[in-house]
This record gives sequence, structure tokens and C-alpha cells, in this order.
Amino acid sequence: MPRPHPVNTLITNIGELVTNDTADDREGGPLGILRDAAVLVEGGRIAWVGRAGEAPAAAPAASTPDPTAGAHRTVANGESSRSEPAVRDGSMNARGHQAAANVVDAGGGAVIPGFVDSHTHLVFGGDRAREFAARMAGRRYEAGGIRSTVAATRAATDDELRQRLAAFVAELHAQGTTTFEIKSGYGLSVADEERLVRLAREVTEEVTFLGAHVVPAEYADTPDAYVDLVIGEMLSACAPHAKWVDAFCEHGAFTPEQSRRVLEAGAAAGLGVRVHGNQLGPGDGVRLAVELGAASVDHCTFLGEADVAALAASDTVATLLPGVEFSTRQPYPDARRLVDAGVTVALASDCNPGSSFTSSMPFCIAVAVRDMGMTPGEAVWAATAGGAAALRRPDVGAIRPGARADLVLLDAPSHVHLAYRPGVPLVARVWKGGEVAAGA
Amino acid sequence: MPRPHPVNTLITNIGELVTNDTADDREGGPLGILRDAAVLVEGGRIAWVGRAGEAPAAAPAASTPDPTAGAHRTVANGESSRSEPAVRDGSMNARGHQAAANVVDAGGGAVIPGFVDSHTHLVFGGDRAREFAARMAGRRYEAGGIRSTVAATRAATDDELRQRLAAFVAELHAQGTTTFEIKSGYGLSVADEERLVRLAREVTEEVTFLGAHVVPAEYADTPDAYVDLVIGEMLSACAPHAKWVDAFCEHGAFTPEQSRRVLEAGAAAGLGVRVHGNQLGPGDGVRLAVELGAASVDHCTFLGEADVAALAASDTVATLLPGVEFSTRQPYPDARRLVDAGVTVALASDCNPGSSFTSSMPFCIAVAVRDMGMTPGEAVWAATAGGAAALRRPDVGAIRPGARADLVLLDAPSHVHLAYRPGVPLVARVWKGGEVAAGA
Repeated sequence: MPRPHPVNTLITNIGELVTNDTADDREGGPLGILRDAAVLVEGGRIAWVGRAGEAPAAAPAASTPDPTAGAHRTVANGESSRSEPAVRDGSMNARGHQAAANVVDAGGGAVIPGFVDSHTHLVFGGDRAREFAARMAGRRYEAGGIRSTVAATRAATDDELRQRLAAFVAELHAQGTTTFEIKSGYGLSVADEERLVRLAREVTEEVTFLGAHVVPAEYADTPDAYVDLVIGEMLSACAPHAKWVDAFCEHGAFTPEQSRRVLEAGAAAGLGVRVHGNQLGPGDGVRLAVELGAASVDHCTFLGEADVAALAASDTVATLLPGVEFSTRQPYPDARRLVDAGVTVALASDCNPGSSFTSSMPFCIAVAVRDMGMTPGEAVWAATAGGAAALRRPDVGAIRPGARADLVLLDAPSHVHLAYRPGVPLVARVWKGGEVAAGA
Repeated sequence: MPRPHPVNTLITNIGELVTNDTADDREGGPLGILRDAAVLVEGGRIAWVGRAGEAPAAAPAASTPDPTAGAHRTVANGESSRSEPAVRDGSMNARGHQAAANVVDAGGGAVIPGFVDSHTHLVFGGDRAREFAARMAGRRYEAGGIRSTVAATRAATDDELRQRLAAFVAELHAQGTTTFEIKSGYGLSVADEERLVRLAREVTEEVTFLGAHVVPAEYADTPDAYVDLVIGEMLSACAPHAKWVDAFCEHGAFTPEQSRRVLEAGAAAGLGVRVHGNQLGPGDGVRLAVELGAASVDHCTFLGEADVAALAASDTVATLLPGVEFSTRQPYPDARRLVDAGVTVALASDCNPGSSFTSSMPFCIAVAVRDMGMTPGEAVWAATAGGAAALRRPDVGAIRPGARADLVLLDAPSHVHLAYRPGVPLVARVWKGGEVAAGA
């Protein structure tokens, strides 16, 4: 169903605006922060950011006025007058201009950029609640558990997967995530991997081909033959739907040599490179990622000094996934060490049914602060601007003129509350491309 | 505003019903679990629990039919026909009876008892986000920080506190908490403590007088004189509004002797006894609680063998507060050791602005499983039946005929998902006394 052209919106009375724009007051942390701020959204983009008292008129997009809109309409998707935060017509503003767009009163709450979740595995069938409960009774996480999800995913129809995916997208939006990556990797046959990247592409442009997730059972004795399949027919089928290629470089998954073959073939097919590395023990994932100019190397739980130095000297983002260590009772990665070394750090959910079934970026922020040595500001930056860097997306992860209008209004006065109030749903309203994606 | 008499409701198509009734299938854990179940609610109480195919007709309460209701009304608080889960009229059921009440289709989701949060401090002014951020940069938690909240609370008007409290109650309901205790303890003068218990009593019957929270600044040099005030004029002013007395028995707060004076005076005034003990180090709190027959001793982070043995031989519940250790970076209490010793364990939020600003029982469950050695079933039991035991409330914490109809429908097939999907808001609908308290 086509949406109407996004209405222009002035969000004002923002107690704390996290811009991630280093030109703004940084208050000693990595976030650009403005107090008593306002944001003007026009045509789905940020048009202006500044002090509430200096806000320009909220006017319809000059080039494409919508004659059907009328002068005093409310926002596009059915909000009523009892909505919190209050929505009123824009006929009054600081400069006294007439304006036809909405004015949203943030009530002194904090507004942050929408979360950028740069690592998920959201196209799958079944769940693994029993495996989780067994692990909590003492069993260790092993990569091979992925195969049970492969079986359930192959058995699911397109529509079953699509329906589930739609529910996850709603769940992400409700928790403030406005950009998300999705990997394949539970198909592991040409037809099933093609199906997963194709379905993922229906809901996001950040699609990653992860045929090299694990070696499927039918190739257990001939893993190199599986790699041949991945870089041959499977890559050809998947590349048209994908933007990225990824490989799980880990004991029990793929060797560094196998991973390199997959990543180089993907790059040759025009895909950007991402790597799963150093999750379950020391390994060559980080080294390989940096050497290949990967946008991101994800997990980074077990790093040596050479790994940290290589990351610090590179453009490769270290993406940490707190939900994994939380849900597998593994030791947490040391985010403090990475930040102090000058590495660009992202936080992501790794939402998947085996090792991390959370989709909550606020939860990841709280755990990163509690157990990985980040300050609340560093964690919020990593979950927004850090994720954008990991996806090489200059248009998201910050609230600056020209950026996509992806905004989260918190039911809290500060971004600190995302760590200070762990588990509490603080996301009050979410805008994606200027349109309300979740919240009253 | 008076509510209408609660409508009768049949909740059916429940994939997993957690009853906490040991007569039901226990599947190896502490929870009574029924599959493919239904629950009939009449007059705000559970009327029947069993297999969906054997459900009786959902009829109006026999003794008080409501002639204004009509045969096909929907639930009381404004649900529309597009609601998920589906609400239909009750004209069809397994026995083919005509029925005038609502039938709610749980869609195969799990239904559990409403959470019983037996330890909160929800009447206060201000917040301590800066203190939290500083602590996350390395400063240790000390009980004395409470005094900054005392100053903000004393400065707040009744209406300011009431408005904040109402927001917290809505937040609790939205997260599935249907019974909650609230402590005073941020007033620390006769007038302010009376004010806090009185305001708390407006929203819950589980009110605890905690004049012995810390020694206020004005009595810093004469703590025994403060205890005299607590057990004299302050107790007299507060007891009429309270059900419980509590004391913070800890270095930096009150000595065991001072705590005993407060608790014995409270008991003599007709209040039940609760104790804060063994939070920041080994101490006498547990011993004192057991000796005085306290309903609960809360924190229990640092326990010796004698403490565990005393608890196991008593009716005193050990209430663990995972949010505190999470938010203060302290070591977690060992729930496994307590459960294995036969101690009754409760989980509670300790929601307060200093040491634990979470109000999320699902979050507490996830942390208890990850870091305190509980199974998901043990943690869910502790957050429901355990909390009810800590408040000595036989009418809540279980789904059995005669119990108050406090129910939570999860957007998940199993209670395990509360730990398996940490941080994700899974509470789809909440009934308190048979009425919808939260959810679509």
C-alpha cells in the first residue's frame, strides 16, 4: 500500500537532543547534545536542528505542496487528539510564522537517532527455547546448533517466513530500531539461500549473503565442496538481492582459508565484506577482515593486542553483540579496551534463535554499560552512529540536516536512562524517514 | 471513577498455561504447566482452569447478572474488534452452551500469573541519572546516596509525587506486574514519612513503613535519637497507612540493634516484618529477620552457611533483587545455592532511583537466569509465587480457582521466552482482578 508523501513535522520542547554531530556540545562524551532543542523534518529528511526558540516555521515541502492535505491536518497514520506527546497544528511557532505541518511537543523528553542494528539473522523458522533452557542448566553453546534452525527454515513456506519477518520488523520499530541488516544463513542450499536473501530484501536494503554460516549436515565430510557451492552457484543466485557478503570464521564453522575464498568471491561479485570473527576463542577473523577492508568484523570477544592494533589502524568497525554473551553465559568483549585504543565500535543485537534472541537495542546498551565497560554515551553512540559506520551509511545514525529523519522520542529526560532503567520500555515514539513507525 | 463490575471472560487457546499449582503437570520444574488450556474468570476471580476442550460456558456471574450488559458486549475498556488477541462473543464454546461473556483467543501464546513485585521504592522526587553515569565511570555505590533523593522528595508536592506514582503504576501494569509493594523511606521526617505511606496507600495495599532507610543528615551525629523518633511519633503517624515495617540493616544505615528496635516496635504496632539485609557485605540482617519471623529478607547477596541454613529452616522468604547488582556492578547473589538448600526465593525489582531504576520483572527474570544460576522456570516462579509468599498473599501469584484473576498473556509460546528474549517487551495483555490493565 503506497504511503502518502511524509508530512512535515516540527518536534519541539526536546529536553535533550542527541545529534551525534560533533559540531554540537559534546559535554565530555562522544555524543553531540543540544538542550531545549527542536528538529524540523521535511520530505522525510532532517531539514533543521537547533534551539527550540530559534526554530523556523514548519512549512510544507516547498517543491511538492500537497493540495489535499489542508492547512491543519494531523500526522499521517491515524493519531488522535489524545495522543501523548501532544500533536497540535503548527500555526504558532517561535518566529510567529503560519505553518501547515504538525508540531509535536516532546514534553522535555530526550530525542536520539533511530537505532542502527547492523547484525541480525531474522529470516528463520522454529525457535530454540528448549536448547536455551538446557544451556541455562549447564550445556555450552556450540555453533552446530545452527543446523536445527536450518531444518526448520527449509521446512517453512515463503509466506510463513514473511509473516514472521513482518512481526520482527514491527518489534524492531517498537524498540526504536529504524535501520537493520538481515543475514541469510539458515538455508544453506542454493534455493533456500536465494529465498532468504530475497525475502530479507523485501523489508531492508541491508541484506547480507551468509551462505558460509555453517557447513550443512549434507556436506559435513566435504566442507570444501560446500565452499565451492557457496562461491559458485549460490553466490550467483544470491548476489542480485544482497549488498554484503559475510562468513563465520570460527572453529566449528569455516577456516580462515575457506572464509577468505568466500569473502573474496563475494567482493568480486560486487558485495561489501563483513566477517563473523573471534567469538568463541582467539582466531584469524579480525586479521582477515582488516586485510580485506571489511566494513565490520562482528563479535570480537577474544582479541589479542595485534587484533586491537590492526582494528585501530583500519576503517573496519568492531561490532560487539552483548546479547550473545548474555544468552550463552560467555565472557563479554572488552569494549573499553577497544574504545581506548581508538577503534570504532558498534553495538548490534545479533537477533537469532540460537545464541541471542533479543531484538532490543536498549537492552544491548544496558549490558554494554554494565559488563563491557562503556559509558552510557559511548553505548548510545555505538548503537546509532557506530551501527551506521558498520553499514557505511552516512545518511543514518545522526540527527543533522540532510540525514534521513529517523528519530526516537524517549519517555525519559536523557539517553542515560537507556542504561539507568534496564528492561523498561522507554521508546515513546519512533519516526522512520519522517513517518511515525511506532508509538502513540 | 468507579469501574463497572468486571465482565466474565474465557481465555482459551492458551498454548502454555503456567498455573504455579503443583497439582498440575510440573514437567520437571517448579511451575504447574497445562498445555492447550483455558481459564474462566468470573467476578474478578479465577473460576475454572483446565484443558481448552473441556472449558465450561463463560456465563455472567450467577449471583449478579448485569442486565445492562446485553448478550454480546465486548470487554469493559474500549477494545475494538481489530484487537489482537481476538475478542469474540462467547456464543460458541466447547460444550455448545450459549454464553454472554467474552471469549479471548490467546492465539497459542503463554499465559502466566501476574508478576508480584514485593520490593519497590516508588514514591520519590528527582532522579539520579548523573550519579548512575558517574558510577558506570567507576564510582562505587554507597547507601548514603539515598539522601539526595530525600532532599528531592521533601521538596516535591503531594500532587507531583502522585502524578509520578501514577506513571509508575502504568509502567508496572504494562510490564505485567499486578501486585506491588511500595516502601516509604525518602521522607525521614514524621510529616514526610506519613505523606509517603499515605500516597503509596492510594495505589496499593502492600505499603511498607521504612523510616529506617538511612539516618537523615540532620541526625548524622545522633543516630539513636533518630531511631527514637522512628519508633515513636513517626511509627504512630505511619502505621495506620502501612501493612509492613522494614529496616535497612547494613553498614552505613542501621546497626542490628537499631534495626531490631525498629522492627520490634513495628510488630508491636501490628505491622508485619520485612528486612533489608546482607546487601553490601556479610551481616546480621538474615539472622535478625529469621529470629523475628519476618515475611522476607531482601538482597541476601552476601550469605554465610549459617544464613542459608537459617533461611531454609524458616518461613522467611529470601528476596533477590537482580536489578541492584546489575546497576551497581556488584557481584550477584547465588540463587542456585538458596534454591538447592530449600529456601523459598522471590525476585523483585527494588525499583528506586539510586541502586536499581528498573521496574521490569521480565528483566529481573532474565538476569536471574543469566547470572544467578536459576532456570527460567525457577525465575518465573520466584517472580510470581515467590513474590506472593514474600507478601504472604495466598490470593495472588498462581492461577487456581478462587485466586484473584491476575493474568499476563505473552507474545510468546512459553514462559522460557522471558529469559530467552531479554529486553524484548513480550507482555501482550494484562488482566488485574479480571479487568484489562494493559495491552491491546
